[in-house]
Amino acid sequence: MSRPVPKIVRATVTPILISDPPLLNVLGVHQPYTPRCVVELETDTGVTGVGETYGDTGYLAAARSLAAAVTGRPLTALNGLLDLAYEAAGLTGDTPETGAEFDPAGLRGRRTNEKLMRSVVSAFEVASLDALGKTVDLPVHALLGGKVRDRVDYSGYLFYRWAEHPAADAPAAGLPHDDWGAALDPDGIVRQARRFADRYGFRSFKLKGGVFEPAQEIEAIRALAKAFPGHPLRLDPNGGWSVDTSVRVAEELGDLLEYMEDPTTGVDGMAAVHARTGALMATNMCVTTFGEIREAFARNAVQVVLSDHHYWGGLHATRELAAVCRVHDVALSMHSNTHLGISLAAMTHVAAVVPNLTYACDSHRPWQTEDVITEPHVFTGGALTVPDTPGLGVELDRDALAALHERWLRLPEFRDRDDVAAMRRADPSWSQPPLPRW
Amino acid sequence: MSRPVPKIVRATVTPILISDPPLLNVLGVHQPYTPRCVVELETDTGVTGVGETYGDTGYLAAARSLAAAVTGRPLTALNGLLDLAYEAAGLTGDTPETGAEFDPAGLRGRRTNEKLMRSVVSAFEVASLDALGKTVDLPVHALLGGKVRDRVDYSGYLFYRWAEHPAADAPAAGLPHDDWGAALDPDGIVRQARRFADRYGFRSFKLKGGVFEPAQEIEAIRALAKAFPGHPLRLDPNGGWSVDTSVRVAEELGDLLEYMEDPTTGVDGMAAVHARTGALMATNMCVTTFGEIREAFARNAVQVVLSDHHYWGGLHATRELAAVCRVHDVALSMHSNTHLGISLAAMTHVAAVVPNLTYACDSHRPWQTEDVITEPHVFTGGALTVPDTPGLGVELDRDALAALHERWLRLPEFRDRDDVAAMRRADPSWSQPPLPRW
Ligand SMILES: [Mg+2]
Ligand SMILES: [Mg+2]
Repeated sequence: MSRPVPKIVRATVTPILISDPPLLNVLGVHQPYTPRCVVELETDTGVTGVGETYGDTGYLAAARSLAAAVTGRPLTALNGLLDLAYEAAGLTGDTPETGAEFDPAGLRGRRTNEKLMRSVVSAFEVASLDALGKTVDLPVHALLGGKVRDRVDYSGYLFYRWAEHPAADAPAAGLPHDDWGAALDPDGIVRQARRFADRYGFRSFKLKGGVFEPAQEIEAIRALAKAFPGHPLRLDPNGGWSVDTSVRVAEELGDLLEYMEDPTTGVDGMAAVHARTGALMATNMCVTTFGEIREAFARNAVQVVLSDHHYWGGLHATRELAAVCRVHDVALSMHSNTHLGISLAAMTHVAAVVPNLTYACDSHRPWQTEDVITEPHVFTGGALTVPDTPGLGVELDRDALAALHERWLRLPEFRDRDDVAAMRRADPSWSQPPLPRW
Repeated sequence: MSRPVPKIVRATVTPILISDPPLLNVLGVHQPYTPRCVVELETDTGVTGVGETYGDTGYLAAARSLAAAVTGRPLTALNGLLDLAYEAAGLTGDTPETGAEFDPAGLRGRRTNEKLMRSVVSAFEVASLDALGKTVDLPVHALLGGKVRDRVDYSGYLFYRWAEHPAADAPAAGLPHDDWGAALDPDGIVRQARRFADRYGFRSFKLKGGVFEPAQEIEAIRALAKAFPGHPLRLDPNGGWSVDTSVRVAEELGDLLEYMEDPTTGVDGMAAVHARTGALMATNMCVTTFGEIREAFARNAVQVVLSDHHYWGGLHATRELAAVCRVHDVALSMHSNTHLGISLAAMTHVAAVVPNLTYACDSHRPWQTEDVITEPHVFTGGALTVPDTPGLGVELDRDALAALHERWLRLPEFRDRDDVAAMRRADPSWSQPPLPRW
């Protein structure tokens, strides 16, 4: 006996603003509120699945047009989603990637139509897998061939930060606040790491660099290595350094870093730093779409790809990226941008099925005190247990979603993330630093 | 409400012998009976799934040890099957591929542990997906992200052949017979193609070459081009030619061939033929496992990979191969060895989900008059419709399976396919020709 494949009867796209602390990076500072977008798909059998992606204006528009286009389609029709997204957005699959400028918001490498489309598709694919899993009583990992590990390790994501957002940012709603205080020197970073380790058990630590001149960031890594001997450490200046500076940092830090993340920009620079130092180059800027792989791998510019199911286009696509990396003996770790529990669940499921994802994954999650799921994840022992409940294993908190959407309606000034503009509100002399900065 | 993931409670491996016509190739001739192996997995919920793979002694032993190992495991634990197969066979995942000699039976490139393990795993993966699809009322293609086409095109697979097997091959059971007659020259090949086209509507034709000297095979392609103007044609001498001979054939045939399949062996040779002629090199011998991709692609030795879910390790692995090919702008077609309807169903499902599988797939199927499914496939318009029924969409014919297994019990002399030995029984002076032959 065969029942029909469930069809999507309703696709809802809800833009939200979530609070974010004043975390610093090479471009500036995180806004007090950052946009995300939650996708809900409802089937004709009454099952709902959820996904989450970037919420900036361009993403939101593409998500809304894809939402209209998926309605009426089989829930299982994932392989056609990218073409459908292009079509719905009025682009064609053959459109060359446009917009070659450096992404001023996301620090995610080149800004292209394809990356935007894939990021939007990822939320619909994840929502589909969540709904399908709930329909057939299987966890998402089982729909991807089954987990190969029961726990997924995450790294503690350390940021230089201010204690408070600049007063100039304050909307009528007021500014988000937390009790982490400022971290603007090596001691501050070690204190932050200690609190992360105590609270969540993280063993690996990643420091977002490119904020201060390299000498101070080198000192911060040394201080971390002293405070956490033997723990894996990473430093990510988002391309803020020249090749010579990158080489100097690599030489000074030697084995203290398990890999260097985007020390400099571009295939030429990354290849040169690796060739001159042997340090492993990890990236979520140099190789961010399938079209960028071939040259970068051929020239040995990248030894660790930081996968991200959002901009690679979903969980199946992440699995495919992993296969490409295996063929080329390139390792895999995982990138994170500011996100909520829906994406964290998706990250955990896909990390569980990819055999060669052996580094601890990055996650901004601990910095986001808000969520849209009823039971936000808590890291223990620096890891999350892979859920075996149907779908993603999360339940949408509709009240929380409504409140964050209401904030989005109320605060149009934060609907596009722009770390440069946020910094400029604190320091009117600030402008986007040309890279390399040092 | 969540029910537990189905577990495998019984795994049955049934070796069979299927009749095969006296089809010729560079190594010799097909035996009258060729071994295959049918895998059945039964779940604790009473659902059965089926898979099919090579049945030669080595494959059978590995399949039997994997059958013991999968019992008790979740039906969805596909990503761990390859490691499990190695472990069950007493090898480790780190074992380097051994046995570098040219495969004397399958014309499938280097013979390695990994290829053997992957071929065995493929049958268990397909059987798992079949059972899972039946469990959750979804076709296998939907478990792989959904079909992107409703019909899968196949090519008509033309062979030089004798009318009958040599009398020396006859076991007590007698020899299989068909009414196709001999095809030993261009006219014979065109007659065969005509009958294939009339009966099944094939538009593309592939000629298995390497049997006669290149001049005659060139004539056969010219005769096909004249009889079927504009139809895509292929010629596969299984590495039977030197680089110079391959270049000469490429120059003589020009645009009449859509691609040249393994004109010569090895990365050096294939790269040289492509560089000298621009002809597209297709292969199921030069690149047959993930470990062979990197060098061959870097050197532009291969422009079309002939995927085969058996030796690449299953349907998920085929999807991953397709992703690797997209990254490298290498095209994808599909290889076939002698197989039955279970594998044809699996081939059709995976071909339906891979966007870049745009060439017509090869299939030996029309030559096999026996099957182990209740409703053997019939090509119409040169294609098969992608099934939307649960699982693979086939039902095992237990009487047919039992009869073919009984033949396997009765005829131990055919349990390993060996085209060289079969030819030697007809012509005692025959020995395995060193390649290149011409
Ligand atoms: Mg980064
Ligand atoms: Mg071949």
